[in-house]
Amino acid sequence: MARSTTAGLVVIGNEILSGKVEDTNSPFLAKQLRAVGVSLERILVIPDEIEVIAAAVREYSATYDLVFTSGGVGPTHDDLTIAGVARALGREVIRHPELEKALRAFFSDRVTEAQLRLADVVDGTELLHDGNLRFPTFLVNNIYVLPGIPEIFRDKVVAIRDRFTTDPFHLRIVYVREQETAIAASLYETLAAFPNLLLGSYPKLNNPEYKVRLTLESKDVDYLESALRKLLEVLPPNAVVRQE
Amino acid sequence: MARSTTAGLVVIGNEILSGKVEDTNSPFLAKQLRAVGVSLERILVIPDEIEVIAAAVREYSATYDLVFTSGGVGPTHDDLTIAGVARALGREVIRHPELEKALRAFFSDRVTEAQLRLADVVDGTELLHDGNLRFPTFLVNNIYVLPGIPEIFRDKVVAIRDRFTTDPFHLRIVYVREQETAIAASLYETLAAFPNLLLGSYPKLNNPEYKVRLTLESKDVDYLESALRKLLEVLPPNAVVRQE
Repeated sequence: MARSTTAGLVVIGNEILSGKVEDTNSPFLAKQLRAVGVSLERILVIPDEIEVIAAAVREYSATYDLVFTSGGVGPTHDDLTIAGVARALGREVIRHPELEKALRAFFSDRVTEAQLRLADVVDGTELLHDGNLRFPTFLVNNIYVLPGIPEIFRDKVVAIRDRFTTDPFHLRIVYVREQETAIAASLYETLAAFPNLLLGSYPKLNNPEYKVRLTLESKDVDYLESALRKLLEVLPPNAVVRQE
Repeated sequence: MARSTTAGLVVIGNEILSGKVEDTNSPFLAKQLRAVGVSLERILVIPDEIEVIAAAVREYSATYDLVFTSGGVGPTHDDLTIAGVARALGREVIRHPELEKALRAFFSDRVTEAQLRLADVVDGTELLHDGNLRFPTFLVNNIYVLPGIPEIFRDKVVAIRDRFTTDPFHLRIVYVREQETAIAASLYETLAAFPNLLLGSYPKLNNPEYKVRLTLESKDVDYLESALRKLLEVLPPNAVVRQE
């Protein structure tokens, strides 16, 4: 089986750590990456601090094929992601001529320094015009710098998603009426025979239909089907409620 | 101002990274910790892998006053948090006599090895009976090991929360009708005068009432009120929609 493309997500936001805002960008990106076959390996939420951003981005950029940042892009004091990514890479922050020109055209002679800050990028940034959004997406090395505002984050992820398409994960779901303790041995037995199976076991409380949801995944559909047959064979009799 | 108690949260769950399940435990814990004055410094979501869990827990346990783990506790193959925490601390996993006794009493002579796995803890674990829940909460060193099932996670957090109570954060919110670019300079000016203010600026798209929500926080209520007065003084005339 081919190695999956890997990704790490760095979420920059005091508002999430302090419980003021719920992070809806992470689950959105997680689903989108899974849909195109990318394996998201880490989600890290950190405060708005340049050194912390730099350390996280440096590590993730060296470790994963793709890095995404969410938040900290904008004109105010707490928008430190561009500076943090620059420090991670040992580069300068520059005012991008194409963006500056566009901002000056848009705001005409009333343009302010705060507005022009939106043209600041890490030196070497490529502007991605995928999806023809109002503002391009920033790519520097393997780092996609995305804004935290959920509507814009989502538009940008959808716009660039096809860049990452690789072999998809195939998924089968089995719902069982037994407790996890009653099926744990069956899961171990299945994994002993199919060690590359991605097997998840998720108990659900107070559900009238089932007690555990089992997810089986692989990029190799034949392997997946064989593993599924094995699991169904070793589960206790009559344990399965239904399959998806 | 007194130093805040700090915390780190490690979420163990392939299901979250693969976008199958939304992590509702992190925002819940973030809010609860904030309410008792604890500063949550990191949220890290990692896969169900012992070495990865061990590395994350080791780092966070050394760095923050409190560490919380969510998920990976249970009887199945993907429940590796206890083993991971044990490895982080260089300790053994032991079967806790008090828990084993309770499980044997509950399941009587039909008890299975999978059920008894629920009695496995890191050597040195303290069982917390706060809140008189059905099952105690595990504390080892500064690490609170919490299950991933949201209902149980929440019950346990609420049960132990008062242990962490410290000086609260005081919060003021100012809604403004200007774009961030129009108020950025005012925010810098406020912070220059009140460098210890926790000041957040959160633009909201397509809201008929306001464009940016500003949050001001401090543990020192007088400092907070002075900083708020300064901000209101330096914001552009007529920028404020309302305050909370």
